Amino acid sequence: MSAPAPRASEEALIARYFAPLAGPGGLALADDAAQLSPSPGHDLVLTADAIVAGVHYLADDPPASIARKALGVNLSDLAAKGATPRGFLLTLALQDDWTEAWLAEFARGLGQASTALGCPLLGGDTVRAAGATLVGVTALGEVPAGGMVPRMAAQVGDRICVSGTIGDGALGLRVLQGVDTWTARLNEEARAHLIDRYRHPRPRLALAPILRRHARAAMDVSDGLAGDLAKMLRGGGRGAWVSVPILPLSEAAHAALREAPGLIDTILTGGDDYEILCAVPPDRVDDALAEAGAAGVSLSAIGVVTADGDAPAFTMSDGTERRFAAGSFSHF
Amino acid sequence: MSAPAPRASEEALIARYFAPLAGPGGLALADDAAQLSPSPGHDLVLTADAIVAGVHYLADDPPASIARKALGVNLSDLAAKGATPRGFLLTLALQDDWTEAWLAEFARGLGQASTALGCPLLGGDTVRAAGATLVGVTALGEVPAGGMVPRMAAQVGDRICVSGTIGDGALGLRVLQGVDTWTARLNEEARAHLIDRYRHPRPRLALAPILRRHARAAMDVSDGLAGDLAKMLRGGGRGAWVSVPILPLSEAAHAALREAPGLIDTILTGGDDYEILCAVPPDRVDDALAEAGAAGVSLSAIGVVTADGDAPAFTMSDGTERRFAAGSFSHF
Repeated sequence: MSAPAPRASEEALIARYFAPLAGPGGLALADDAAQLSPSPGHDLVLTADAIVAGVHYLADDPPASIARKALGVNLSDLAAKGATPRGFLLTLALQDDWTEAWLAEFARGLGQASTALGCPLLGGDTVRAAGATLVGVTALGEVPAGGMVPRMAAQVGDRICVSGTIGDGALGLRVLQGVDTWTARLNEEARAHLIDRYRHPRPRLALAPILRRHARAAMDVSDGLAGDLAKMLRGGGRGAWVSVPILPLSEAAHAALREAPGLIDTILTGGDDYEILCAVPPDRVDDALAEAGAAGVSLSAIGVVTADGDAPAFTMSDGTERRFAAGSFSHF
Repeated sequence: MSAPAPRASEEALIARYFAPLAGPGGLALADDAAQLSPSPGHDLVLTADAIVAGVHYLADDPPASIARKALGVNLSDLAAKGATPRGFLLTLALQDDWTEAWLAEFARGLGQASTALGCPLLGGDTVRAAGATLVGVTALGEVPAGGMVPRMAAQVGDRICVSGTIGDGALGLRVLQGVDTWTARLNEEARAHLIDRYRHPRPRLALAPILRRHARAAMDVSDGLAGDLAKMLRGGGRGAWVSVPILPLSEAAHAALREAPGLIDTILTGGDDYEILCAVPPDRVDDALAEAGAAGVSLSAIGVVTADGDAPAFTMSDGTERRFAAGSFSHF
């Protein structure tokens, strides 16, 4: 429809940057489709998430970080479903002023993440974006047949658990935006930690088998703890009570809260956590927490599923109770 | 990162427009992932293609047509690999000025195409594009184990065959652009035919089992017959000879050629055919053509694979021979 850009062809770019990342099913990216089948006795689990410059990441984020984030947010979904990654397809829509230097760094970061997470490239498409760059990933994982952990099956009395720490990603974005005065008062280590957490989701793949064994329901926290907890419990007249003082926070988040206590709202409702939120029957909580610790990922009980059909209730450090409107944050 | 648009939430849009299209593995789009496994004794085949406003379709194309094209171009890849569709994931990046009326029409067209092609929606993601709308599809199909038809395996002496008619899509785009004087001299029926072919790829799914039985190599023609034939034969010192006078052309394409004989270059190198290009051993050609006809899709032998490692040679109607540089057209 329009003249090709005076740069390498799509085919040349794929051969140079992406073919080296291809797994066996990707056929060296030299065919028109990839092949993949689940291991015997397993189901495939599929998820697709795209990130867009200026919406899900900052346009001047390092290209290797953008690649790592695009893969990470998808594998975070697989981990929450109890799935082991098998491979991914990439849809890369490049804005008009892309450079080969950017693409080389992007591919390098993608290759590192792909190797580290055990998830090879299977195929994809590279197009002109006619606007901001978009990185879309479709990730495929597998679970033992029938073993996918659902989002919606929590029962009253189940303990609500989260992995890692909450709020770092949303605070990291605020640090990068540099508008709030509190961000300047953090030390360099805290700032670096929060930025790293915003840029580099850590899909909690080590939790996948533990979720399959012990969790009744799970999802990843990508749009804020309060909103995603409400999503997990939607329908069926269930609610939740969460104790904010016991929420797992990083040192950096604690430091930010000391500077600006109102940031607790950002921590509870901001996006970009990419931690696991799950509902675990009471008699399984001790095992789940212990096994997670042994697998190198902290898992913390923060509340309980109730028969209260309202938005989840959060008891704050000062003893007051708050409820946040569901969907208070959206990447859309 | 930015304030949500004052419109329905992503979740509400999904529930309203996309959940009704979900197949069984899509879990009503109410979970974070989909489930799908190949039928016993089958391999999954995966492909991902995105179309972008202003690059792969015209921004003012009817939204139902855009949806149909996005799904069609992906299922065309599956058909070329001999695969039967099983489902797809959708990444929809909407430009800022999207309307619910547009989205409703898009979803209606997607639902119709999904039903007609037997390929249910499994999941996906809806995001803001920060630029032009992008519709990305990852399609999953299946073939009997080991049965995927490769792109690269043609052998010298194989007959080169194409389905349907060639060049209509590229001519249809020229009609829509309305710049060329010949377009005004076509009758309304011819114009409508060419536009329809540009907007509505017809994935040749009926050919999938025939390709598995008889084709040594296959791909779909999306970037022009000349360039895609060169791609199919790349490596291994193979070339091709093609007879242009016997190329299958529509009545409308013949009419356009009568007005402007130079359009033969557009027909041979333009994109958007979404027909099947395949290499069939000589002793299988009669069966392949007959079975295709019986399945309701025309398949035509147009040339032969040669031991000449250059770009494919096309003998034109005037007896001259031409070779087109590979990749003469690119959507990138």
